[in-house]
Amino acid sequence: MTVVNTLADVVVAVDLGGTAIKGSLVSETGETVATSTRSTPATDIIDTLMELIAELIAAATAHGRTVIAAAVVTPGMVDESSGVVVYASNLNWKNVPLLAELQSRLSIPVTVGHDVRAAGLAESRLGAAQDVDDFTLIPIGTGMAAAIVSASGAVRGALGAAGEIGHIPIVQGGELCTCGQRGCLEVYVSGAGVARRYAARAGGNLSSREIVARLGSDADADSVWDEAARALAQGLATVTLLLDPAVIVLGGGFSQAGAALLHPVTRYLDELLVWRDAPDVVLSRLGGDAGRVGAALLAFACVDRLEVADTWVLDAERVPL
Amino acid sequence: MTVVNTLADVVVAVDLGGTAIKGSLVSETGETVATSTRSTPATDIIDTLMELIAELIAAATAHGRTVIAAAVVTPGMVDESSGVVVYASNLNWKNVPLLAELQSRLSIPVTVGHDVRAAGLAESRLGAAQDVDDFTLIPIGTGMAAAIVSASGAVRGALGAAGEIGHIPIVQGGELCTCGQRGCLEVYVSGAGVARRYAARAGGNLSSREIVARLGSDADADSVWDEAARALAQGLATVTLLLDPAVIVLGGGFSQAGAALLHPVTRYLDELLVWRDAPDVVLSRLGGDAGRVGAALLAFACVDRLEVADTWVLDAERVPL
Repeated sequence: MTVVNTLADVVVAVDLGGTAIKGSLVSETGETVATSTRSTPATDIIDTLMELIAELIAAATAHGRTVIAAAVVTPGMVDESSGVVVYASNLNWKNVPLLAELQSRLSIPVTVGHDVRAAGLAESRLGAAQDVDDFTLIPIGTGMAAAIVSASGAVRGALGAAGEIGHIPIVQGGELCTCGQRGCLEVYVSGAGVARRYAARAGGNLSSREIVARLGSDADADSVWDEAARALAQGLATVTLLLDPAVIVLGGGFSQAGAALLHPVTRYLDELLVWRDAPDVVLSRLGGDAGRVGAALLAFACVDRLEVADTWVLDAERVPL
Repeated sequence: MTVVNTLADVVVAVDLGGTAIKGSLVSETGETVATSTRSTPATDIIDTLMELIAELIAAATAHGRTVIAAAVVTPGMVDESSGVVVYASNLNWKNVPLLAELQSRLSIPVTVGHDVRAAGLAESRLGAAQDVDDFTLIPIGTGMAAAIVSASGAVRGALGAAGEIGHIPIVQGGELCTCGQRGCLEVYVSGAGVARRYAARAGGNLSSREIVARLGSDADADSVWDEAARALAQGLATVTLLLDPAVIVLGGGFSQAGAALLHPVTRYLDELLVWRDAPDVVLSRLGGDAGRVGAALLAFACVDRLEVADTWVLDAERVPL
């Protein structure tokens, strides 16, 4: 029997997004031992991903740590059981057998997950959704998506495509979304949507963060933000009525607006729900780090050591989306 | 060891609704041995329910059958694990410990379920959602609700209140719903909603069935029905994007419109979903009988004999909602 030096064990956790590939080594105590980030290339994404993973494994070895598993999470339609990324517009991927590629190039156990569902796992184990069976995590960044978790488990959908809350129709015949549909929720609520709608009213090129900073002193900012809060409340009313979560967790960079988002959204949600109470609506504790933390949890889970997270203390520093 | 005469075994299955209490004896081969229906009284509902169950048990005995279990399904917020009906507006019930009441008065195993989720079980075992893990059943009658089933199981919600699709907001600031909210889906799509909206345009007091019969020869009927199809498509787009079901099953009396409903709804749904395919949208095979069949399945399940349904052949005659 081999006695494992558990304190030396780490996993490689990678959040593969359309803009950046964010990798890290995470220890069994939840410590981030090393990080490495690369811009997502237009082509040969898997080569860049493998270079990043190799770099992290080398860093682990240099620190006397053993890499026991790796996990890569991606956006899009992900079939977690086969490890195939069915469709990811941000990566320009269609039916990419990511797990098989990783397995053929790595000699450690490896797993593939969905970025937002992995973030949901992280919020459930370590974040704002502990101690509840039914919750919905909605990370809002450039766009938005949802991790839907019920008492029986995460809702993945028939094609691994559940959780596309950013594209539910909120306004009949509303403004055009980048996806080609009209009146999608993220037209009104996302970072990109708020910035675009503000620019259309007032000109300029402000980010959603800059627009939030102008609330109370810029009528256009107030107006666009109020419409965002109303649209988000409508989306949350839909989630509440369909899914009855105990908690809705708002995450992503957009949620860093804090009370400026939470207060109007919860007020409008209460107005929309006449005959039932609203669930708790809270801000994520993990922020933009939730996907990467979720990937680390998936990596430990794939070697049957998910229980390590029971003792994790979260890093004080969080990585914004 | 007791040798059970399985062919003689039956269960009592009761669909307790706001209008009627529909009970039946169902055999292990899916045969409906006897039925009994009573109007739902304004008060003392449980007394009437118990009389109906006693009548069915007496009928079983008279036919030489043994009642091995009973199940009662109700609308509203139902906590299936405790058997408490948390809230059911149609029954004027709040925190009614239905399971405990039934257990105290019956000497056979008994269980309590949610009418629409039980119907979802029936569609899954015997109806239009066989062989799929992820589906949504939407019975549309006077109002509408949904049973949401994913690969990991039925979504019940934190309060047993999941599936209230009839009250998701479809039109911002839209027409007033009987629930007190505005622009709810069932304002536009349900039997009551279509009848009310037609009467507001054209007068009279036609049922939704009569309105469907006028399609093609009555511009008001065409208009109200088209708005219903558009609203339903918008609701189905939301369900598709959030939950990614393989199949959406439309049930209830409203779905008896058949192709007059299915054709425009699927066309509008295809128009709304630009970047992903629509799931299959099909009509229920069980119709208004799904809740009662589901109750029978729950009764067999509570004595660990759910597998009996594998051999059921559905009754040719279906009970409309």
